[in-house]
Amino acid sequence: MNNPITKDYAHFEDLEIGQTIDLGATTLTKEMIITFATEFDPFPFHIDEKAAKASLLGGIAASGWQTGAIALKKLLENFPKKLASAGGLGFTNLKWKRPVMANDTIGGTVTIANKRRTKSRPQWGIVTLEFDITNQKSQTVMTMSLENLVDVRNPEITDEGSPK
Amino acid sequence: MNNPITKDYAHFEDLEIGQTIDLGATTLTKEMIITFATEFDPFPFHIDEKAAKASLLGGIAASGWQTGAIALKKLLENFPKKLASAGGLGFTNLKWKRPVMANDTIGGTVTIANKRRTKSRPQWGIVTLEFDITNQKSQTVMTMSLENLVDVRNPEITDEGSPK
Repeated sequence: MNNPITKDYAHFEDLEIGQTIDLGATTLTKEMIITFATEFDPFPFHIDEKAAKASLLGGIAASGWQTGAIALKKLLENFPKKLASAGGLGFTNLKWKRPVMANDTIGGTVTIANKRRTKSRPQWGIVTLEFDITNQKSQTVMTMSLENLVDVRNPEITDEGSPK
Repeated sequence: MNNPITKDYAHFEDLEIGQTIDLGATTLTKEMIITFATEFDPFPFHIDEKAAKASLLGGIAASGWQTGAIALKKLLENFPKKLASAGGLGFTNLKWKRPVMANDTIGGTVTIANKRRTKSRPQWGIVTLEFDITNQKSQTVMTMSLENLVDVRNPEITDEGSPK
């Protein structure tokens, strides 16, 4: 436990399996794609319009890392309350299924797929968040499954998602 | 095939299983951590020094996404040639094992763990890159396994990593 225990925060107990968060819509401009990729993922098909046009995709495509970072940002913006997160543990799976091209609009949902507590860390629960990121044609462009530690409000109570 | 076939580029045939790339050293300043996390991962323990000091970690910790992005950037910088990449497919696994705190220096290695070709996409091979990211105490902070499409220089030749 670290985040304030107030009604502004969603703690482990407040999260419901099956709950879905809509991520709204984000249009990736050519400039956004080039700026991000120049710093982190400087392949020609992300940053060089001429090379990108000559490539199989026929134009500038976003770094998959940018798609992931935007999904994370939009999740935090659209979460009904502040998430009492204690940090991420990792991904069990991340797939880039289709390219995101300049001027594509991405959105999608995050679903709380699972929540569980552990004996070794009674103060935190592990929440599995499944991301389904789509483009303006409702085609899935990225999926990932993120495991995140979330503060438990009442660690002594073990009846909900009790330690195993 | 998309990238130029010149000696400046590493194509599928040039990559050797077991080959290791050293990522050099990158020190994450407080400013770098706050700038990145403010945009993409604005939790208090990433961006608010006072809140971070009061937290379990006792100070500003980097977003795990930033650690990943830096690892990718350093791989591209340190690869012996330009990688004839045709894009990433995804991660089979990503784990944040320890926090990266302000002023920590991260580095580590990327190992070419596997390479294979497929019948359905003779022009590209799938290369598995295993990242082992460490801090200045040689403790692992992040591991991930990335699958990437790499251009095949001679798709008609199937004797090396031949299509199955």
